[in-house]
Amino acid sequence: MQKQILPYLKEMPKGLNRNGIQHKTVKGSVSKSKQKSRRQRWNIRPSEISINTLNPIRAIVDGMKLSPNPGKPMIALSIGDPTVFGNLPTDEKVTQALKDAIDSHKYNGYAPSVELEDIQTSKNLLLSSLQDVVLTSGCSQAIDLAITVLCNPGDNILIPCPGFSLYKTLAVSLGIQVKLYNLLPEKSWEIDLQHMESLIDDRTTCLIINNPSNPCGSVYSKEHLQNVLSVASKNCIPILADEIYGDMVFPGCKYQSMASLSSDVPILACGGLAKRWLVPGWRMGWILIHDRNQIFGKEIRQGLVHLSQRIMGACTIVQGAIESILNDTPQEFYYRTLSFLKSNSEICFSELSTVPGLTLVLPAGAMYLMVGIEMEHFPEFQNDVQFTERLVTEQSVFCLPATAFEYPNYFRIVVTVPEEMMMEACARIREFCQRHYRPCSQDSNELDQ
Amino acid sequence: MQKQILPYLKEMPKGLNRNGIQHKTVKGSVSKSKQKSRRQRWNIRPSEISINTLNPIRAIVDGMKLSPNPGKPMIALSIGDPTVFGNLPTDEKVTQALKDAIDSHKYNGYAPSVELEDIQTSKNLLLSSLQDVVLTSGCSQAIDLAITVLCNPGDNILIPCPGFSLYKTLAVSLGIQVKLYNLLPEKSWEIDLQHMESLIDDRTTCLIINNPSNPCGSVYSKEHLQNVLSVASKNCIPILADEIYGDMVFPGCKYQSMASLSSDVPILACGGLAKRWLVPGWRMGWILIHDRNQIFGKEIRQGLVHLSQRIMGACTIVQGAIESILNDTPQEFYYRTLSFLKSNSEICFSELSTVPGLTLVLPAGAMYLMVGIEMEHFPEFQNDVQFTERLVTEQSVFCLPATAFEYPNYFRIVVTVPEEMMMEACARIREFCQRHYRPCSQDSNELDQ
Repeated sequence: MQKQILPYLKEMPKGLNRNGIQHKTVKGSVSKSKQKSRRQRWNIRPSEISINTLNPIRAIVDGMKLSPNPGKPMIALSIGDPTVFGNLPTDEKVTQALKDAIDSHKYNGYAPSVELEDIQTSKNLLLSSLQDVVLTSGCSQAIDLAITVLCNPGDNILIPCPGFSLYKTLAVSLGIQVKLYNLLPEKSWEIDLQHMESLIDDRTTCLIINNPSNPCGSVYSKEHLQNVLSVASKNCIPILADEIYGDMVFPGCKYQSMASLSSDVPILACGGLAKRWLVPGWRMGWILIHDRNQIFGKEIRQGLVHLSQRIMGACTIVQGAIESILNDTPQEFYYRTLSFLKSNSEICFSELSTVPGLTLVLPAGAMYLMVGIEMEHFPEFQNDVQFTERLVTEQSVFCLPATAFEYPNYFRIVVTVPEEMMMEACARIREFCQRHYRPCSQDSNELDQ
Repeated sequence: MQKQILPYLKEMPKGLNRNGIQHKTVKGSVSKSKQKSRRQRWNIRPSEISINTLNPIRAIVDGMKLSPNPGKPMIALSIGDPTVFGNLPTDEKVTQALKDAIDSHKYNGYAPSVELEDIQTSKNLLLSSLQDVVLTSGCSQAIDLAITVLCNPGDNILIPCPGFSLYKTLAVSLGIQVKLYNLLPEKSWEIDLQHMESLIDDRTTCLIINNPSNPCGSVYSKEHLQNVLSVASKNCIPILADEIYGDMVFPGCKYQSMASLSSDVPILACGGLAKRWLVPGWRMGWILIHDRNQIFGKEIRQGLVHLSQRIMGACTIVQGAIESILNDTPQEFYYRTLSFLKSNSEICFSELSTVPGLTLVLPAGAMYLMVGIEMEHFPEFQNDVQFTERLVTEQSVFCLPATAFEYPNYFRIVVTVPEEMMMEACARIREFCQRHYRPCSQDSNELDQ
């Protein structure tokens, strides 16, 4: 009885308030209560900001009917957490660094979350030039602080499409408008620069660039990044560089940080330990303030200091380990992880790119791959949500529909699963597509005639 | 040169913008730029919320001239971090629990930060009845989420005076008004209930109760807490119980959580590992949702779920250790810590309560003690800020002026310092007061005549 949740302000017997206590409606008592101006009954509503903080992934997944085929074990290719299958442990040196930090007894107290112009040598690993660092509770707090310091309600920010849903979630909850700029699958998910620039207006206060990309797995060339910087420079818009997958590029590719190429555009580069060191739960993130020309100046730094004092971000034990984690993690660890991700991506690409009705772009980094669905060949399904829902029902394979990234008719595959699982999943996706694929529709035949 | 920070938008040669590039003021170019509606120059301003997030302690301390007497080593009685002097280490079992969590390799991934109606047995230690838990990045994020879910801009909350400054910092930055209710030093810092109730109006959405108290070190009796609950119940206002010092009461005293006494008032109880387990840097906090009558209902829970997804709070390694920390920490550890704090408080009280011009209330918990300054006996100083400033200059002892807690003419002493340091500090405060004390002023003599 105690645990039963009553529907809120609904189905209450008339004349009773939420607590079942009779509500007085006698004239005298009402006017008396008005004089006192105090509440006569409980009426607690959640705030606007809590109502407006929406996670589209949750909303979409919760709305799906996910009943796996009991004859086939479930394979989830949907979870952006590289640790879930146990096949990608972090390095022994990384956990040792944490234990050393514990044993030192030096990292139990409060620590400053901001190191302005006072970077230790080790941190230079992160930095192309001497800059300021704000430590945060994961990269998501870094992005939260960066958006919050740059934008007022009514301003707008430019975000990639397809793109990570958190940008929109945070911005909308703060009354900041988002405008989606297109990424081009036919150009390995490069940014449509003309489209991006056409969206800029005088309330645009921030350009979010995510490289390497979630959900695309793309890695931008030096030249492309320079072109992005030109747009920012020409329009005097600062960049929020989401580089949580920084350096997570497959052997043979090259990663370039946005800030290493900028001569004038001020950049808040957000990163963290989560993905490259395979410890997303440790919640260790950072903002690197790149500001060669002192355009952010003291004020933006001060704003970040203010905001970072609200909740004092990262766990000090992890802070105590970070120098060793950055310096002492062996190169083989990174190489092994990235080689595995490359190999799995290639398996996935070669297995699925020959499946009629699907289109793929080979990724170059991060841990994702986007698959396009030629919906005209799958007339049974209205969209990617229905397609992926049925893939669960029939094949027990779950991929996130890219509607969650504002990009319908695609789905995202996470390539961190064990190799056999990846191969099995691809075989099942192939079987699923073969069963539901319909060759050229009448319409196009008619057009051909 | 690169590191030099230029004053923002000041001292710029006329006709040059921030980057030293000549600004075009020809008519044509101006109208052209308007058509394009893009910026012609950099002008990045911090957001309103970042400007309005103000830490009064920082503002006051930064404004003080703190030059210790070179002849005396500095003693800081100002820092609310029990770990700084190394005399109060956490228990071996607590650090071992953290290492076990690391070695299990089970706590590197993302973890849900919300456990709604699904509490493990161990967590019942925290709970008086089956409730919901939201894990947060320290108690400060717990307080942030609790205020944020209950209040909209324009609402008001009631906070204690003197009280912890974070409540106001968070509320004001969100456009929420604060109203200060008085604590009564003559009644061991109990709440002035009449005053508190007189402040309630129809925009009051939350009553913050801090017990045991920072900065007072007071612990409320069961009866007083019941009286507080009556006010909340009568006026239908939910309570945010800041219980970060919960169970931190001296041997012989009894702590009672607010929720254990409530039959109807819904309570968000904020707590964490920081103080009782002496690990504030670990950033492990929680909100316990106490809602016996389902007055918060689904909506407030859902609002907290939404807000907690913005940044996903606590480090998973600490989350993995929490069950063991709550269950396995030996009782001797708590007893040893609290006996030490009690003993130090008693030293401080007996040393300073006999000093002419000072007034003290013996604390019963937490780790603080407030000292009143009879300003009429110290005519050299205008207020507590000047008094504590000069105490540094002459005696190298720093106590936080209680203006930082909206309570002028008091200062706060932190009693976690080693015993010898506490005794030495008290001796120096006594010496300082003796030097500056002026007996009865002429005014009162005149009145006597």
